[in-house]
Amino acid sequence: MKKIVKNGVVVTATDTYKADILIENGVISAIGSAFEEQGCEVIDAKGNYVFPGGIDPHTHLDMPFGGTVTKDDFETGTRAAAFGGTTTVIDFCLTNKGEPLQKAIGTWHEKSKGKAAIDYSFHLMIGEITEDVLNELPTIIEKEGITSFKVFMAYKNVFQADDATLYQTLVQAKKLGALVMVHAENGDVIEYLTAQALEQGQTDPIYHALTRPPEIEGEATGRAAVLTELADSQLYVVHVSCAEAVKKIAEAREKGVNIWGETCPQYLTLDQTYLEKPNFEGAKYVWSPPLREKWNQDVLWNALRNGDLQTIGSDQCSFDFNGQKDLGKGDFTKIPNGGPIIEDRMSILFSEGVVKKRININQFVDITSTKIAKLFGLYPKKGTIAVGADADLLIFDPSVERTVSANTHHMAVDYSAFEGMKVTGEPVSVLCRGEFVVKDKQFVGQKGYGQFTKRAKFNELNTANEAEKLML
Amino acid sequence: MKKIVKNGVVVTATDTYKADILIENGVISAIGSAFEEQGCEVIDAKGNYVFPGGIDPHTHLDMPFGGTVTKDDFETGTRAAAFGGTTTVIDFCLTNKGEPLQKAIGTWHEKSKGKAAIDYSFHLMIGEITEDVLNELPTIIEKEGITSFKVFMAYKNVFQADDATLYQTLVQAKKLGALVMVHAENGDVIEYLTAQALEQGQTDPIYHALTRPPEIEGEATGRAAVLTELADSQLYVVHVSCAEAVKKIAEAREKGVNIWGETCPQYLTLDQTYLEKPNFEGAKYVWSPPLREKWNQDVLWNALRNGDLQTIGSDQCSFDFNGQKDLGKGDFTKIPNGGPIIEDRMSILFSEGVVKKRININQFVDITSTKIAKLFGLYPKKGTIAVGADADLLIFDPSVERTVSANTHHMAVDYSAFEGMKVTGEPVSVLCRGEFVVKDKQFVGQKGYGQFTKRAKFNELNTANEAEKLML
Amino acid sequence: MKKIVKNGVVVTATDTYKADILIENGVISAIGSAFEEQGCEVIDAKGNYVFPGGIDPHTHLDMPFGGTVTKDDFETGTRAAAFGGTTTVIDFCLTNKGEPLQKAIGTWHEKSKGKAAIDYSFHLMIGEITEDVLNELPTIIEKEGITSFKVFMAYKNVFQADDATLYQTLVQAKKLGALVMVHAENGDVIEYLTAQALEQGQTDPIYHALTRPPEIEGEATGRAAVLTELADSQLYVVHVSCAEAVKKIAEAREKGVNIWGETCPQYLTLDQTYLEKPNFEGAKYVWSPPLREKWNQDVLWNALRNGDLQTIGSDQCSFDFNGQKDLGKGDFTKIPNGGPIIEDRMSILFSEGVVKKRININQFVDITSTKIAKLFGLYPKKGTIAVGADADLLIFDPSVERTVSANTHHMAVDYSAFEGMKVTGEPVSVLCRGEFVVKDKQFVGQKGYGQFTKRAKFNELNTANEAEKLML
Amino acid sequence: MKKIVKNGVVVTATDTYKADILIENGVISAIGSAFEEQGCEVIDAKGNYVFPGGIDPHTHLDMPFGGTVTKDDFETGTRAAAFGGTTTVIDFCLTNKGEPLQKAIGTWHEKSKGKAAIDYSFHLMIGEITEDVLNELPTIIEKEGITSFKVFMAYKNVFQADDATLYQTLVQAKKLGALVMVHAENGDVIEYLTAQALEQGQTDPIYHALTRPPEIEGEATGRAAVLTELADSQLYVVHVSCAEAVKKIAEAREKGVNIWGETCPQYLTLDQTYLEKPNFEGAKYVWSPPLREKWNQDVLWNALRNGDLQTIGSDQCSFDFNGQKDLGKGDFTKIPNGGPIIEDRMSILFSEGVVKKRININQFVDITSTKIAKLFGLYPKKGTIAVGADADLLIFDPSVERTVSANTHHMAVDYSAFEGMKVTGEPVSVLCRGEFVVKDKQFVGQKGYGQFTKRAKFNELNTANEAEKLML
Repeated sequence: MKKIVKNGVVVTATDTYKADILIENGVISAIGSAFEEQGCEVIDAKGNYVFPGGIDPHTHLDMPFGGTVTKDDFETGTRAAAFGGTTTVIDFCLTNKGEPLQKAIGTWHEKSKGKAAIDYSFHLMIGEITEDVLNELPTIIEKEGITSFKVFMAYKNVFQADDATLYQTLVQAKKLGALVMVHAENGDVIEYLTAQALEQGQTDPIYHALTRPPEIEGEATGRAAVLTELADSQLYVVHVSCAEAVKKIAEAREKGVNIWGETCPQYLTLDQTYLEKPNFEGAKYVWSPPLREKWNQDVLWNALRNGDLQTIGSDQCSFDFNGQKDLGKGDFTKIPNGGPIIEDRMSILFSEGVVKKRININQFVDITSTKIAKLFGLYPKKGTIAVGADADLLIFDPSVERTVSANTHHMAVDYSAFEGMKVTGEPVSVLCRGEFVVKDKQFVGQKGYGQFTKRAKFNELNTANEAEKLML
Repeated sequence: MKKIVKNGVVVTATDTYKADILIENGVISAIGSAFEEQGCEVIDAKGNYVFPGGIDPHTHLDMPFGGTVTKDDFETGTRAAAFGGTTTVIDFCLTNKGEPLQKAIGTWHEKSKGKAAIDYSFHLMIGEITEDVLNELPTIIEKEGITSFKVFMAYKNVFQADDATLYQTLVQAKKLGALVMVHAENGDVIEYLTAQALEQGQTDPIYHALTRPPEIEGEATGRAAVLTELADSQLYVVHVSCAEAVKKIAEAREKGVNIWGETCPQYLTLDQTYLEKPNFEGAKYVWSPPLREKWNQDVLWNALRNGDLQTIGSDQCSFDFNGQKDLGKGDFTKIPNGGPIIEDRMSILFSEGVVKKRININQFVDITSTKIAKLFGLYPKKGTIAVGADADLLIFDPSVERTVSANTHHMAVDYSAFEGMKVTGEPVSVLCRGEFVVKDKQFVGQKGYGQFTKRAKFNELNTANEAEKLML
Repeated sequence: MKKIVKNGVVVTATDTYKADILIENGVISAIGSAFEEQGCEVIDAKGNYVFPGGIDPHTHLDMPFGGTVTKDDFETGTRAAAFGGTTTVIDFCLTNKGEPLQKAIGTWHEKSKGKAAIDYSFHLMIGEITEDVLNELPTIIEKEGITSFKVFMAYKNVFQADDATLYQTLVQAKKLGALVMVHAENGDVIEYLTAQALEQGQTDPIYHALTRPPEIEGEATGRAAVLTELADSQLYVVHVSCAEAVKKIAEAREKGVNIWGETCPQYLTLDQTYLEKPNFEGAKYVWSPPLREKWNQDVLWNALRNGDLQTIGSDQCSFDFNGQKDLGKGDFTKIPNGGPIIEDRMSILFSEGVVKKRININQFVDITSTKIAKLFGLYPKKGTIAVGADADLLIFDPSVERTVSANTHHMAVDYSAFEGMKVTGEPVSVLCRGEFVVKDKQFVGQKGYGQFTKRAKFNELNTANEAEKLML
Repeated sequence: MKKIVKNGVVVTATDTYKADILIENGVISAIGSAFEEQGCEVIDAKGNYVFPGGIDPHTHLDMPFGGTVTKDDFETGTRAAAFGGTTTVIDFCLTNKGEPLQKAIGTWHEKSKGKAAIDYSFHLMIGEITEDVLNELPTIIEKEGITSFKVFMAYKNVFQADDATLYQTLVQAKKLGALVMVHAENGDVIEYLTAQALEQGQTDPIYHALTRPPEIEGEATGRAAVLTELADSQLYVVHVSCAEAVKKIAEAREKGVNIWGETCPQYLTLDQTYLEKPNFEGAKYVWSPPLREKWNQDVLWNALRNGDLQTIGSDQCSFDFNGQKDLGKGDFTKIPNGGPIIEDRMSILFSEGVVKKRININQFVDITSTKIAKLFGLYPKKGTIAVGADADLLIFDPSVERTVSANTHHMAVDYSAFEGMKVTGEPVSVLCRGEFVVKDKQFVGQKGYGQFTKRAKFNELNTANEAEKLML
């Protein structure tokens, strides 16, 4: 059945205007007013914004880490994402050295199949470049529609790749049409500092932060940028946490390097002092890179505003405080890294960003959805409100004031990273391809409704690659 | 009568999609397909892009300079602009020290009244801050709808203001809601270098460039940025020509200063060697700031791409080669500064930018129209294609190849700055508030159709100021 | 009579070694040991360092300012300087617009004649460039031996010169062989901020600092550097107080610009909070540029250590707290700027710099004496301990601990800027051209012993200009 | 017998003056004039400069590389060095993973014992940090007097250490009092680029340069600087070749990092085009890092002038063109890296630096001798002309014009890297600890006269560590 979203204020990465949206076959067919309502489901969005559904470019669902597994899987994770206004997630598919990439992709399809409430895709981790890997890559891009590769510069002896691997991944990405993503921290230095800390009996969560100083995030970011420049390739730096890294990205952009940066809600709102919370509660705030000194938040916000950073991901990677995080009692290196954010990503950016006038409402859309869609080959089906796009919509009430809490969130974990934070604005209803997933704040979606979405190749101009073919 | 623009590819600063546009009462009322055509004028845009009409933020029409007057006035200038796809111009209203600002505004209304084929507005030059000026400013903003002020850091003893004036203008702009614009070159140094050159018999056009080195544009740009930062105000740097100035803008943006930069087609495509053309032809290329060494072009393009520069203006200021430019024979300081660009601004950016893949097509729209509308308070009536916006549209054929020439252009001057340049793409039809100004490459507009457009106050988040009120 | 300084540790800008110094006719004739003592005055320097006498490149003695006159003149000032280990001062000769430079020089000769206990020279202020000024300059350099010019970018309507004047001064300096010095603050902005503060009833001393923010010192420093680069000339930035200015100097040096920077003991040890002292005591700490936030001190020390700053001056400009500084009660702009430092300059740098290991002892000599001698054409007669140099020596006991106080200092003012500061190290004896000025901490010099010292032209390589002629 | 060096112009890192030098027991005992000549050997230095003997901080004598061995060993190498005015060399002692460091040191003592004509010391390569290495280091510093460690960031699978090793070496150096040296190029990227080039048949010498772009030298330099900053340690970057690396060093110095940089004569005078010489002659110019584009030379000279670089080494590593360099015909990776420079180091710096006014004569002394002595713990015995220092002297005639050639040089190789270069100035006589090694341009020294010189620990203030003890 056709649907009409009526009386809302439509917001895109550029525009803000009052109009009705006509949906046919899950796709936006017209934007205007006075549409014939006969035979249509009419959704009244009066007093609400209508945003493109959010795209979370950085999730770890059903992921093994340090002998345990994230609490949220594709079922609970995507449901919570939908409650937060997100209609697509891109999850990281981890690979094992010596095994076919296709095997890892198969594993990830198994994890996700029949579970997701919203659409999803995968990034593929590259841990080594071998003849076999080189042979597999073209198929993965062309057939699987997986067009982004992740390389870790940290987690020595686990995920960490050397510079030769990073460089070759950049070369292949350029050649094949993929976007390379890096976790930019110098794992060699971290390994040493970590060992030193433990040797000196420094085992509390705060030492997680103190053994991963911002200088080495800046260093690794700069190094990756230089390799990208040399390879004339393209790079996306995940979870940028500090001024040092922002500076390196800005410098590279000024030189014309194709580089983009993502930050996360946690780096924008929390800080290093959280790791010092008593009763081991600091463990709740263990991310890599770690939370930083508070002044970095201004730098990150400014970078989002002026375009040196372009997107926001959740880095969703949730573990229970009791039973998982507490594996690290007496040894901070055993605390599973990560936290539950997938549900709060958009609300926090709206409340802390738009309401507090750090970014404008069009930037909000760009940062949470449009730019991500373009960088990762989901546009123009995803990431905008325009004729022909999927009707992935978030109807959002900007006037509600509420408090974030584990008591009310929908993620499977036993705590919230933002417990007690007051936010302004709340998702009301969420549609994915024209169907309600959340309606009037109730989950009405279906496990397995979400589809694996093949993505287009990376487009160097970061534009409407598919759209440009319209003129042909 | 209603109009339907059919079958085109609609392009905004964010989106690119195939759709029809319904126009009622000069305003866009719906975007979709299968509109009822009965009672409508149907315009077939098949094979064409439909862009928001261009906004030229930097014109000097009917302007006195060095004892002569620009060849193009509001009649010929706006007609030529329309041929080039521009539907609004913002012209500089020059003031005289000691006279009421209102008098100058009156003069500019006289110059433009009943003449323009497209809509227009004025920026107001501030040459001094006196008690009288301070008293006039609120009215000018509130009543006249003139919400941008221009300060010259060059042209000593003519337009040049000192730093105290610039600083106070920034303070007032912050307080009242205006955007300050600067011509950033160090006029003191230029005055000395110029005098030295003439004393040494260096009278040819090339000395115009050599006595205005890029270092002093960089210096003045950096100085203006510091003053803006201190005053917590907002600044728009006009006609950025060189790497030195781009660097200062980028640095200030990284620090969170509210600063934006404009460049011009001439700096993107021509270079300093043009001033050495024989037979005094170099005089055709005398702009201030001057054309630079060619390598600067890459820096400017990269800045447009990465967002360190945001807009493009024509700096239209046209003088005949014969009878005007030649006033400077034997003394380059007597060459009237400026050139005819108003008609070519968008075509050159499309051909050199989009076709040559230096920017993408959405950036093209942002740079030539949307960002300008937002910075200068014309949005959301102008600068986009969205429901509720004025139907200021440019129907553009991207496939035509043609050659720029004074023989075919519509400006009143006897030469073209881009004579012989091959460009790809051509404006086909142009509508202003729903009415054709150019139709199938013929002028069908009317002298005097263009309206003076009052502009909204400067909005610090550079967003849809009027649009945001929609939620109220 | 010959003298032998025996058993001391001789320190130069490069070397540290134990040796005796033989002095004949006021000049160092040999360095070694076992000199024939017959017929010599033997001075035992055991346990002491023997440094080259200090050179203070920045003093204002007997200077009128804001309707009053500095308390210290050439008599009291140079005597106090000698107590502090300084054997030469270079004072600023102020000029008046419209009057011959020679007249101002005459005035300064009158002020100093027959008064100084140690050697002295003058820098010449340039306030305007006229035909007359241009005609006078060659003589001033060649005949008067005054080879450095000072330009003020602040003190609007008093000392401030415009950029055209600064630029021409740089051009003339290059041509004639002089070094240009600037007071780098943007006087236009200060004028406005100051007026605003007063208008808002902000009259306390702290507003002196708040109306002269570091950004405008950085701005003016950068501007002067650009002008120097363009003129291919040479620049010495006086009294650098903040990180912003250091950065501009460092950047220019990296580009190869001939630029040097001086800081002062007050900026290295005091900070902005001193201006908030109660009972109007903040007025004692009113310098221009003002004291800065404390963190700037680290930047300044690091710049001295790594060579981005090269010298230290006192900016001696002393006014009594009672009767002079208090002219500014109720209006901070009426507080005479400056303070008494001439006596403490070297002791503070030794104690805070060498003893606290921020600089080494050879850098101490370079910063307080050798580099100054080279930059200002006093070398090789002054500024070092080497065969052939004037026997200007400071015998310094590094082990004494003492407290700085107005009760014990020898300047004519009623307070000390460093009252209560503990310092390690004390001048014991001071010789100027082989004669004692201070002996065993007692003044034994003579009013009028000091000679006006003509200086050599600026040498671009900042080297032993006279010395290089030795090979001829 | 005592010696008197008479009538010369003595030059130190600070001073230039005419004086005689008295030498007793191999040590300078006095500087002055009119010394009693009875019983002394009098050396007339009229018309000559007397410099401290040069110290070459970077030589590879008798070093195996790529299956061959450098042509010059400690006999021929030090003799050639003496001809060039150098009186001390510090050679790199290579270590093998898994073997005791002491074994490598033993090997180097064997190579050098009884061979050197001048004094020498060793730097120690660190290729890994193991428990054994950690146990050996204190002894090596305390007993062996080897106080500098070299880490390679390039030569993957040969010398290259990972960042963990570099970081731990920095930590140990800080703790024990040593200076860490790095070869800063990203070996991982080089390995890939090299393999790619060979795969594409790019086998000529020029590809050596093209597969080691300056970006990766800049990257590695910046990375090493960050690690140094984090470890609060000290770093010396060897053979800096390009602007990118200079920038990283300058930035780190501005932040207060203890970092110094060395360049080499080849980078100051030769450029990348030399690798394109026909007949495989390009192989003569194969260094790592490679020769760069010519414009980098200005950057390097400016850095030496303004203090961002502090020293010059030869990186002496000589191979015959015939029989050694030609191993790389058809595969540039097989060309032994390095060249013969030890003899020309000082002459080239004098001629290209001092004579061409890029640096002054005191800087020449600092760069070739004094600063090296201070950084590497040889001062105050070596590196200056002062009472108490070793009489390591270079008597240098600045007026001779000559041509560098393999026909006249004294190195054992069959070509000169500077064949045909005109230089001004020539070493006349060289003394090491008071004894002639070269006299009137003839070798009069003895194989084995040179002593292994134990060096003092690194002194953070880079000062007269031994000298400071004089006050005790």
